[in-house]
Amino acid sequence: MKTIEPRLPKGMRDILPQRMQARQYVVGLVEEVFAEFGFEPLITPAVELSEILLGKYGSEGDKLVFMVEHPGGKEKLALRYDLSVPLSRVVAQYPDLPKPFRRYQIAPVWRAERPQKGRYREFYQCDADVVGSSSMLADAEIIALIYTILHRLGFQQFVTLINNRKILTAIGQYAGVPASQTPQLHRCLDKLDKIGLQGVRAELLQAGLEVRAVDRLLDLLLPGGDPAKQISLDELKAELSSHPQGVEGVSELQELLRFLPALGVQTDCYRVDLAMVRGLDYYTGPIYETLVEKPRIGSITGGGRFDGLVGMFFTQSLPATGTSNGLERIIDSMEELHMVPANLGQTQVQVLVSVFSAELLHESLRLAAELRSAGLHCELYYGRESLGGQVRYALKRGIPLMVIAGPDEVAAGTVTVRDLRLKFQAQTPRSEAAKMLRERLSVVQD
Amino acid sequence: MKTIEPRLPKGMRDILPQRMQARQYVVGLVEEVFAEFGFEPLITPAVELSEILLGKYGSEGDKLVFMVEHPGGKEKLALRYDLSVPLSRVVAQYPDLPKPFRRYQIAPVWRAERPQKGRYREFYQCDADVVGSSSMLADAEIIALIYTILHRLGFQQFVTLINNRKILTAIGQYAGVPASQTPQLHRCLDKLDKIGLQGVRAELLQAGLEVRAVDRLLDLLLPGGDPAKQISLDELKAELSSHPQGVEGVSELQELLRFLPALGVQTDCYRVDLAMVRGLDYYTGPIYETLVEKPRIGSITGGGRFDGLVGMFFTQSLPATGTSNGLERIIDSMEELHMVPANLGQTQVQVLVSVFSAELLHESLRLAAELRSAGLHCELYYGRESLGGQVRYALKRGIPLMVIAGPDEVAAGTVTVRDLRLKFQAQTPRSEAAKMLRERLSVVQD
Repeated sequence: MKTIEPRLPKGMRDILPQRMQARQYVVGLVEEVFAEFGFEPLITPAVELSEILLGKYGSEGDKLVFMVEHPGGKEKLALRYDLSVPLSRVVAQYPDLPKPFRRYQIAPVWRAERPQKGRYREFYQCDADVVGSSSMLADAEIIALIYTILHRLGFQQFVTLINNRKILTAIGQYAGVPASQTPQLHRCLDKLDKIGLQGVRAELLQAGLEVRAVDRLLDLLLPGGDPAKQISLDELKAELSSHPQGVEGVSELQELLRFLPALGVQTDCYRVDLAMVRGLDYYTGPIYETLVEKPRIGSITGGGRFDGLVGMFFTQSLPATGTSNGLERIIDSMEELHMVPANLGQTQVQVLVSVFSAELLHESLRLAAELRSAGLHCELYYGRESLGGQVRYALKRGIPLMVIAGPDEVAAGTVTVRDLRLKFQAQTPRSEAAKMLRERLSVVQD
Repeated sequence: MKTIEPRLPKGMRDILPQRMQARQYVVGLVEEVFAEFGFEPLITPAVELSEILLGKYGSEGDKLVFMVEHPGGKEKLALRYDLSVPLSRVVAQYPDLPKPFRRYQIAPVWRAERPQKGRYREFYQCDADVVGSSSMLADAEIIALIYTILHRLGFQQFVTLINNRKILTAIGQYAGVPASQTPQLHRCLDKLDKIGLQGVRAELLQAGLEVRAVDRLLDLLLPGGDPAKQISLDELKAELSSHPQGVEGVSELQELLRFLPALGVQTDCYRVDLAMVRGLDYYTGPIYETLVEKPRIGSITGGGRFDGLVGMFFTQSLPATGTSNGLERIIDSMEELHMVPANLGQTQVQVLVSVFSAELLHESLRLAAELRSAGLHCELYYGRESLGGQVRYALKRGIPLMVIAGPDEVAAGTVTVRDLRLKFQAQTPRSEAAKMLRERLSVVQD
């Protein structure tokens, strides 16, 4: 029979065991912080009816949705593109869910984007959202959640930029930008980081906005073109006084900012950025984006309030806010910054249970069963090599410890524990073997 | 705008937070046992090239594969149907993986089967496989692994039936069944449980086998039609002496059986069943299937050796053996048998941090941050109800504990801890709050 070439679809990848240690560490930590903040897990299927997904991500997004079908099937199906739209469907579908509904979901999503470095067609999102509360407490807790995760993972010098879509809209009105051009305005502002103030100015003019409107707008957002000179929120409120939505946005922002220190967020880890936009169309209130500033690896996570999304599936809409963290983005950044804990070795196997001889194989089997009952991660050696060969095998695999039950040990009721990292070796009564192995595992290496 | 009806594709489902507690308990336990046995995690994409999947599951299986495409994409893609074929691809694609390669994967698979009770089109498999060893130790460890998982989950009176495909094939030869009819023979035998001995006999005759062959076959497999009268393995070996494959199969089976007691598997939890077949075509050696016997809920898991699968993707084949556990099957059975631990409540939230008044809100925020740093799962109350309303909210949500920081507590540097299950209430110094909450959580209820 002809063999089939073993390969992956474009933009997809496998995560082999040696890379899973770091990944499980990050996922475990994220999940723990989600739980501490009172979020609960939810699983939705990877496959949704396509009518649920399409039309939510803009026409560019729609083109990236993977379609699914099976021969003879009548439903139009698709792979989920994010976790927010499935959440909105869930909240609409089960109206009895307790509110506020705080759920987290850590799961893959699929987008047929052009593959490039660090960007995959299947990638994992870690989302936490609160549905059913319009309190700024919910938004403040989401920002505290992001802060806690990044802080606990060991990120330093990161900052969460905070803005409010209501302010952005009002500033547009204030400057005289027609409502129809608001999305365009947002898209231009979104590029400020990349193309600079003059670049944004040129693009806005090119988009057909009047010179006077553009200058008025940029003067308010970035007085003198200098982010450090941002006007105070009270001044902004006064300036926008004839635009109720703007006044509301500033009040929300002020309330949100008051909560953050009490929630334990360090004051140098967030700031208002009136020019920060966030790409997605569906945000309606507070928006936030976190940048790792040193080294400058850019935006690592973000989120915001999307009070309109549930209403697409439900007669009565529900306020909602939350964050979406790209797992690969976090792990890649941590690897770049050498932040992955050094004690995460190349394997999670802790002990190789060696086999002294065919006659004594049963002793090794019993020993493996005993150590496993004690919770140790044990690999039983299957091969036929001598003890020396088994040591070399363990070293190559990165397994730190080895146990030996040879004839002397069996006669004495002991086992030999060998630490392959430190060239330590000792005999211990068999009943104490698990304890000694645990002690060795807790030895920290230089 | 017209709202879209929030609904799921046929045969798919959501797992809402209140059902996630039991699920995470099972997944955590399974994952822990996998790790204890030296298996390491692997992630493969949900989407594979369709040529990787098709042709591996028989023509019936192929019809159930979901196809995937995106507008303009040139690749023929499909959702994975199981985790064994992707594993075989991985092993062929990365020839440098250390051998034996022991990997586990807990992940959804998709099959467009006709939906029915307890059967879903997206369901989770928990697979553990060893690739690169033909030692019967590997098969014995897989059986010990299944035993350890079911035992630790609390299953009682379950039994793993063990057989070997080589014996089945040899018995067919022995009885005079032509090689071309072997798969048919297996399919008939597989129904023994459902249609009984006479039913199998009738089907084999109908399939065109000779009366003499059928009787010879059934006499060997089930002397007198009574499973209790199974012939001994030594007798079987003698009977099959002119069929080398059969002799080899019996020797493998004998070796395997010798390992199990030393690996800690209780002797009443496994037995040889020469008529046990396992559905899948790709098994080549030992096969195993575990039944929960009381109450009779039937087959809960199984597995076997598939030495040919890797060779479909690779010039050099590699021996492989393993097990595939349906997660939903295990959880559904546990719920049916009332085996889900009672302390898994309706929520994983442990503490409601109440808000005494708008003026004292900041005290509650600080308290929430402190308790979260101590690892407690805290929900902050967002609403505007009085303390009485907040108690009712916590009770409805099933949150066991509540903390209160009112004016008296703030003045005294304390907090009030209320246990909503036991009507217990006490004040404690604020610095001791986390400790008292942990103590309350460890109180077991009747």
